Amino acid sequence: PQGDRERLLQALAETYGIKRLSADLRVLGRLPHLLRSRQGSVTATVWNRKEIVAVEAGVVDRLLGMAFDVGTTTVVGYLLDLMTGEELSVQSDLNPQIAFGDNVISRISLCQENPEAIDWLRSAMVDCMNGLIERAASEAQIEPGRIAEATVAGNTAMHHLLLGLDPRYLVVAPYLPALSEQQSFKARDLGLSLGASAYVHVLPNKAGFVGGDAVACVLAAGMHRKRAHALLIDLGTNGEIVLGNKDRLLCCSTAAGPAFEGGHIKWGMRAASGAIERIEVDPETFEVKVKTVHNAPPVGLCGSGVISAAARMIRAGVILCRGNFSDAVRSERLREGSDGPEFVLVWSGQGGVEEDIVFTSKDVSELQMAKAAVHAGAALLGEQFESAYPERVLLAGAGGNYVDPADALAIDLFPGASAGSITAVGNAAGYGACLALLDRRKRREAQRVAARMEYKELAGDPRFQELFVQSMFFTRALDYRSDF
Amino acid sequence: PQGDRERLLQALAETYGIKRLSADLRVLGRLPHLLRSRQGSVTATVWNRKEIVAVEAGVVDRLLGMAFDVGTTTVVGYLLDLMTGEELSVQSDLNPQIAFGDNVISRISLCQENPEAIDWLRSAMVDCMNGLIERAASEAQIEPGRIAEATVAGNTAMHHLLLGLDPRYLVVAPYLPALSEQQSFKARDLGLSLGASAYVHVLPNKAGFVGGDAVACVLAAGMHRKRAHALLIDLGTNGEIVLGNKDRLLCCSTAAGPAFEGGHIKWGMRAASGAIERIEVDPETFEVKVKTVHNAPPVGLCGSGVISAAARMIRAGVILCRGNFSDAVRSERLREGSDGPEFVLVWSGQGGVEEDIVFTSKDVSELQMAKAAVHAGAALLGEQFESAYPERVLLAGAGGNYVDPADALAIDLFPGASAGSITAVGNAAGYGACLALLDRRKRREAQRVAARMEYKELAGDPRFQELFVQSMFFTRALDYRSDF
Repeated sequence: PQGDRERLLQALAETYGIKRLSADLRVLGRLPHLLRSRQGSVTATVWNRKEIVAVEAGVVDRLLGMAFDVGTTTVVGYLLDLMTGEELSVQSDLNPQIAFGDNVISRISLCQENPEAIDWLRSAMVDCMNGLIERAASEAQIEPGRIAEATVAGNTAMHHLLLGLDPRYLVVAPYLPALSEQQSFKARDLGLSLGASAYVHVLPNKAGFVGGDAVACVLAAGMHRKRAHALLIDLGTNGEIVLGNKDRLLCCSTAAGPAFEGGHIKWGMRAASGAIERIEVDPETFEVKVKTVHNAPPVGLCGSGVISAAARMIRAGVILCRGNFSDAVRSERLREGSDGPEFVLVWSGQGGVEEDIVFTSKDVSELQMAKAAVHAGAALLGEQFESAYPERVLLAGAGGNYVDPADALAIDLFPGASAGSITAVGNAAGYGACLALLDRRKRREAQRVAARMEYKELAGDPRFQELFVQSMFFTRALDYRSDF
Repeated sequence: PQGDRERLLQALAETYGIKRLSADLRVLGRLPHLLRSRQGSVTATVWNRKEIVAVEAGVVDRLLGMAFDVGTTTVVGYLLDLMTGEELSVQSDLNPQIAFGDNVISRISLCQENPEAIDWLRSAMVDCMNGLIERAASEAQIEPGRIAEATVAGNTAMHHLLLGLDPRYLVVAPYLPALSEQQSFKARDLGLSLGASAYVHVLPNKAGFVGGDAVACVLAAGMHRKRAHALLIDLGTNGEIVLGNKDRLLCCSTAAGPAFEGGHIKWGMRAASGAIERIEVDPETFEVKVKTVHNAPPVGLCGSGVISAAARMIRAGVILCRGNFSDAVRSERLREGSDGPEFVLVWSGQGGVEEDIVFTSKDVSELQMAKAAVHAGAALLGEQFESAYPERVLLAGAGGNYVDPADALAIDLFPGASAGSITAVGNAAGYGACLALLDRRKRREAQRVAARMEYKELAGDPRFQELFVQSMFFTRALDYRSDF
């Protein structure tokens, strides 16, 4: 007599040639009933030709997976049909760890003060991801327990906090992660409400501040396969930058801060309904037109709106090279506010809020710091190559945060390039996580990409400091107006 | 830069040549601190050259494991030092599932009535095993979390109930287990309080009623390696019987009932302090001497005491061939009790209880049923071989339940054999679990043993019924007295 598990294994070996399989405990628990059900057949889901991670009654031709992009500010989950590649639902939410600190450093500091904070941050993240799973499953009308696999791309700190790994040594030289190579974990061990036996594949980290999200961006953009020199900028709170081609890839991380995701901006918000994504400012009348997410009445500015506001105000001559507002502008929109000078983007009554939506001088400073960090990082990497300027620029960012290439140029976000060579690639980290979910060869590729990338540490590099100070200015402002 | 995990893996690869390792999540969580501790070195525990299941600060030269024998009536746990093989503690307890039914069939029936019972039975067992772990760890003065591995030998029903697998199909033809081959599970997935990343290795089942305990018995006795024909009888509630040698091994399971473990016996108890293990009855005066566990004042009869009482009463002519009490005995010990005729073993005041400890006619009937089941099973297997009688008889039983070979002969427990060829091997299933814990080659051997054993199903076999009826008698009674 053979056991149920052995009969199933034998059938899989005979039909598909898959041998030496194990079966997860939670699968074994379902086997006796299913093998004796009236449907007469079962469908087994085999993971990596190693382990049976699901059995279902009858013939099931749908296999589901979830890819996560776990950012410092925004968490995005993609529910995919693994047979067809179809995207069944995309859900995003603010990273609830923001309650403990709005950037990676402040959260790690909290863990330094109180080691219990690791678990607070972990469980906040897990709750958030379980919420995304539930919403995605509900939209696609499936049971969350049917999701058979997941991938996660996140920066190294988010990666550590999801796994409950102490992140404190990420900020101490030599900035080593606890785990850098890819590894798979049981979803139940992480607390994620996926299939009972599902695995979660965590993309590899390159360094303490270049994580699986940057690797996923490269994977999605295919930079490691192309001859053209490309500059990839992930416009998140941690601005990861990768420069190079199939022969050589350099990377670094710049602490851009949350401005690119609408953080630290007076009217900043995430890219939800009513968030202003694009702005136009008439250089003669200074009249403003805004484009919002879902074309809803404007209620604030998301990351691309922040960049667009600065860019269009520069082009209209409202913001000058050093970031100061022009004295020459005659418009009631430019006025003295409670935080210093401000420019009214939307008058109260015309928007979805009862106040004027403004872009302040302080907001400009926040953006200057963020864009200077990115510009300096990209310039520093460029110095390692013969040709300092990339042939292509890829702008990535979480939450569908599409930046207008012309706006990126106007704020002088990176060295060189013309508008034609710039592509907004959306949430490349999320797409990379999706690729790694759909194709396990892509996971091996991710590991090779991580191994090949050369990491440049910027902390304490005097050349970076020099470049950072030089990058604070909006040098393109000079091209638009001559009244500087 | 490399991660902590990768640095540890590299060190293991360079020093021991162990490659392609993974590290359990719970291990990763401890790495950052440990690798930066002042002790400068760490000790990693690697499981099956596959996975790091523990890291500790400094040089640790002690590796701990636990072997379990999970019987229907008794659960035994052995805490071993895996480096030296030393037994650090042995703990046993009644199987708390008894509250739900005192044999396997009644517990499975409960699961048929109410599927939730699977989880009641599972958690009762897990609590019991966790109690043994705690007591063993306390006796050995170690932390339970330092126990790095465990093995479990149990009959198929106990195996299923520990893993939370539905046991209902074990009693339905063709009596297939959910899982028969060996497999390892994370202790945390089973709910066992061992090391955070420890594996539990579950010995293979042969059939629905011949489980890992029988396989462990064969492993411990080495029957599968020897030329001599041996008969192994596991005197538990499920009387597993194995007959054969290195060329052929036959096995069956007989529903002996709990009499061999002191169950269903008026003064029956488990082999705890004060349990009568051996009895002598003077054939002239009918005076009784008893030997108890720890030489404590007698409080009841454990399994070997039950066999000894019957055997010595047979030899003294008190019990006759058909199991009835002799009319010819003139002793105040032989009297009419509330349950029919009974024989006083210990007078009140001489024992540890305030009543007379007696062996009743009903107790004799219980033992007759149990021994007949074993005798018939052994006889049936013997018919498959040319020589019906084994060269050696091995008597195994849980909880240190050592049976005197002469007593086993006197009750006619099995066909053939002389006292000299009988060995009481103690808890062979437990020893087999210990062997499988100490040496992973023994685990592979267990798998081969299970594959090689031929299972004989007794249920519904008319020849077994015939043999069972014939085996009810105490045929040796005729040798001792002629007043039949």
